[in-house]
Order: sequence, then C-alpha cells, then structure tokens
Amino acid sequence: MTSGTSSGTWFNEALYPDWGQRFKVVKELVHKKSPFQDIRIFESSSHGRVLVLDGIVQITERDEFIYQEMLAHVPLFMHPNPRRVLIIGAGDGGVLRRVLQHETVEKAVMVEIDGDVIELSKQHLPMFGQDAWKDPRAEVIVGDGIDYVKKAGDASFDVIIVDSTDPIGVGDVLFTDDFYKNCARILSDEGIIVNQCGVPFQQADELRETTARRAKFFPHVTAYLAAVPTYVGGFMTLGMAKKGTPPHKLDVAELARRAKGIEASCQYWTPDVHVASFSLPPYIAQNLPRP
Amino acid sequence: MTSGTSSGTWFNEALYPDWGQRFKVVKELVHKKSPFQDIRIFESSSHGRVLVLDGIVQITERDEFIYQEMLAHVPLFMHPNPRRVLIIGAGDGGVLRRVLQHETVEKAVMVEIDGDVIELSKQHLPMFGQDAWKDPRAEVIVGDGIDYVKKAGDASFDVIIVDSTDPIGVGDVLFTDDFYKNCARILSDEGIIVNQCGVPFQQADELRETTARRAKFFPHVTAYLAAVPTYVGGFMTLGMAKKGTPPHKLDVAELARRAKGIEASCQYWTPDVHVASFSLPPYIAQNLPRP
Repeated sequence: MTSGTSSGTWFNEALYPDWGQRFKVVKELVHKKSPFQDIRIFESSSHGRVLVLDGIVQITERDEFIYQEMLAHVPLFMHPNPRRVLIIGAGDGGVLRRVLQHETVEKAVMVEIDGDVIELSKQHLPMFGQDAWKDPRAEVIVGDGIDYVKKAGDASFDVIIVDSTDPIGVGDVLFTDDFYKNCARILSDEGIIVNQCGVPFQQADELRETTARRAKFFPHVTAYLAAVPTYVGGFMTLGMAKKGTPPHKLDVAELARRAKGIEASCQYWTPDVHVASFSLPPYIAQNLPRP
Repeated sequence: MTSGTSSGTWFNEALYPDWGQRFKVVKELVHKKSPFQDIRIFESSSHGRVLVLDGIVQITERDEFIYQEMLAHVPLFMHPNPRRVLIIGAGDGGVLRRVLQHETVEKAVMVEIDGDVIELSKQHLPMFGQDAWKDPRAEVIVGDGIDYVKKAGDASFDVIIVDSTDPIGVGDVLFTDDFYKNCARILSDEGIIVNQCGVPFQQADELRETTARRAKFFPHVTAYLAAVPTYVGGFMTLGMAKKGTPPHKLDVAELARRAKGIEASCQYWTPDVHVASFSLPPYIAQNLPRP
C-alpha cells in the first residue's frame, strides 16, 4: 500500500508498514492525482495544514519551520558568499522563502517537477512561500531537476538544496550518480549541496547509500541533524557535500555575525543549534564514511 | 480516553487526542491492571518489545538506549564524583543499568511505586536491566518516591534521576513543590537532579511549569535534549537542576576522559552529543527562565 488511508476521521501515514503516525483530519482541502503523484492537503487540529504526497507527510503548518530553516540556513550561512542558489523540489515554497532572506542571494532558481504542488501550495499553503513567489530574485521553473542540472552551465551555482521526497517514487532519480556528478559540475569552487537523507532510525540505508554516492563526486561529505516532529523516528539527517577546501571549523560568533537580520525570524536555527547539529550519535554516524 | 486501543492488530497511542503513533502488534505479552495503572507489554515488528502504561508508550526495545543513556550519563558525567545515586521510577531497570556502569557509584537506590512494573520487566524486558538487578550496589525499593525523599537524610545523594510518566496519573506528585524541596535537601552540596519534561512541541507547559518550580529550590536550572523516536514530537527535554556552584562549562576532552570504559557501550551519548544536547532551539528555550 503506497498511500495513506483515512479511517473515519483519521489519516494514517503509510510510510512504514508496521509503525507510523496518524492525524485527526478536521477537513480535507484537496485530494488530486497529478501526472506525478497523489496530492492531498488537509486541515488537522494538531498541526494545522498538512501536505501529503503519495500517502507520505511532507510538511505541516506547525513544524515546517524546523525543516525549512535547517535545510536552507545551514548551507547558506556556511558558504562565505552565496549568490546563486538552486533549489530542487520544495514546491511548497518554504525553502525558497528562507533562501531569499539572505541578502547575499542574487538569484534563486527553484525547479519543481510537479506544477500542481506549486499551484495547490500557493492556494492552500500560502504561509509557506509568502511573498517569496513574487520576489524578483526568484525564478520558479516547473520541470525536471535531472534535466536542469544536466543542462546548467559549469560553476553556475554556489549552493544546491535538494528537497526531495524519499528515494522512492518520483524522487528516486535525485539520488543517482548522474545527478550528483552534474551537481558537482555546476557548483562553483567552494560550492555546497545539501539534501534530505531521511530518518536514519528507520531508513539508515538511505543515509549510508546516498552519502557513499556523494563521496564519489565531492571531496567532503558529512551530515547534520534536525528533529522534525512529523518526520517521525527521532532525528532526520540532512546530507551535506562540499567542493574545494574542507568545511571551516564552525564558529558561533561568525555564524551570529552572518545571521544578523535573519536570526530573529528563526524558531529552530541559532548559531549554537547550527554547530550542535553536526554532532552525530554513533547510531547515525556509523552510516557515514569514517573521517 | 486515557488508554490506547488496539484496532485489529494495531496499537494506537492515545497520549494526544488528535495526533499520535501506532504500532503493528505482533503479539500481546501482558495486559494487567496493577493497583496503580494499566500495564501492557507487546511485541512489535518495528520496535521489538514495547512497554505501555495507561495507554502511553514508555519505552521500546529498539530505541530505549537513547532515553536511558541521556537520562543517566549526562548528570553522572557532569558530577565530578557521583557516589550515591537515587533513581525514582524507571521500573524497567534500564536507567539502573546505565547508572551502575559508572565506577564511582557506590550505591544506587531505585524507588519504583509499582512492583508489577519491576516484575513484568524482569520477566518480559530482561534486556533493559540485564545484570543490574543483581548488582550488590543496587537497592531496589518498591515504594513511594514522595515518601522516600521526605524521609531520606540531608545530603544523602549526589545525583537524583526522576524517570516518571508525564505529570498526569500516577506520576503527577513527582512534579510538586514539596517533592523538589525535599530533593534539594537530600542532595549533597554540588548535587544534580534530572527529570523528564516531555516533548515541548506538544507539551510546552510541562517544561515551562516544572522548570519554574525547580527554580524555586535550586539556584541553577536548565534543560537538555534527546531525540527519542517513540516519544513522538521531535525533541524531548530533560530538565536539570543543580545546587552549589554554576554548572561547569562543558568540555569535550574532560567528558571523554570521564567516559573511558563507558563510551564504547553507547549508541547515542558521546562527549560531543552531550555538549550539543544543551543547545536549545528558540521554540524550546522560550519555556525556560532567561539566563
């Protein structure tokens, strides 16, 4: 069974066959089959609006800040001067909004394969993207991220953020050798790529295999953590890979300097939390190559 | 509804009325009403054995290491010489086992109100307590933690660990002024108390109110984090309060030195993770008194 089922007024997530979360549904707002996937948006009393793709919870109104802040701010604050940013996926607009908070950013290209996710998010989840959709620095492309990175010019981005679904279904091509090879090519000399690597307590293979794959094309690979309530299973990991010199030893004072004007908007990210997020428990670290 | 319900082969946790986790039950091992609470132990395919009290998941075989390591090792590694330790609750034996890993510990007194939890854990969850039950340094008392701290002598413990249920039902008396006042009295000069404070994304009041209460009787109060898969809702917080001098600035090298002989057994705790666990996201930190 690949999609969640409503049983009475409950939505039961079917990501794992034998354990999962359930939401009491106040009202179903959308249920549509796009050319790519089953899209559902409902209102819950516990988490506000919930976006579900192919039966799997992608984001909720109440906890979206955690995932979006950590996916966008960590690479953007680590890069000394992120001017051009590529976002793949993230059709709800929440990552785009956080990326555009950074004044160094001159251009943010977002490539989302499913135009219906964008349109339905604008309509039912406007609090995620907010004004980012109209920002003149944003270029929103409905298209295939694989094609996009194949055709993009060498060294044309400083940061790539991959906000994909898990490596099943429509998102699986975003975890291939070809994809990472092109990402490495189109990143500038000190370029950074991040992508979600699932919840290792449940999906350790995902972290292990995609990290090994990134290590083929990037000299530096690591991962950091975020505890997102609706990605059940404890920590999720965000994979990071970098070209050029090794990542700087992170410094709270320097991060705080870079975050001026942004930190006050954050409910999860802080300079301290940023540094702490790279401390991996052994049950997670064992899935990464030894340093 | 205060207890979970099985629907077919699923156990639906009923901690929150409109969101929660569910487990596929392979086999129910025990379901018993003790004089204090409804006790259930079942086998799941996802998390191994699961202990449920009054419908709320307390611990599972697969992720118990996270909670137990963080609840026991953090205070014991912070105290320079923890010799006498009081554990309240924790009838499954997992905290007792971690406490007794510390060679400085001469005596660990565990006071659990529900003898059935102890007996059923020994029988069905022997992997939690292991040999700790037979350790000559362990004194296991079936009794009321409130009474115990009322009668215990001044300065008779270096560390107190409160592994209670949430402040509803049988555990609510472990969150009162009287209880904390006595804990402060029976702790030695540099004594530390930790207790679980719930999952602040769902239960922020619990962290806020119990921290304010601890602050009445201890000069130093703080909290630290653990991401426990089956305490759904992102980070759980563990409250810490200390007598005497302010907590030392934590140092990874010193923690590593103290942890020799224990660190290798840990799957979650490391010196790095220990330090990182005190970096609180703003949505959590806002529930603590300002430093």
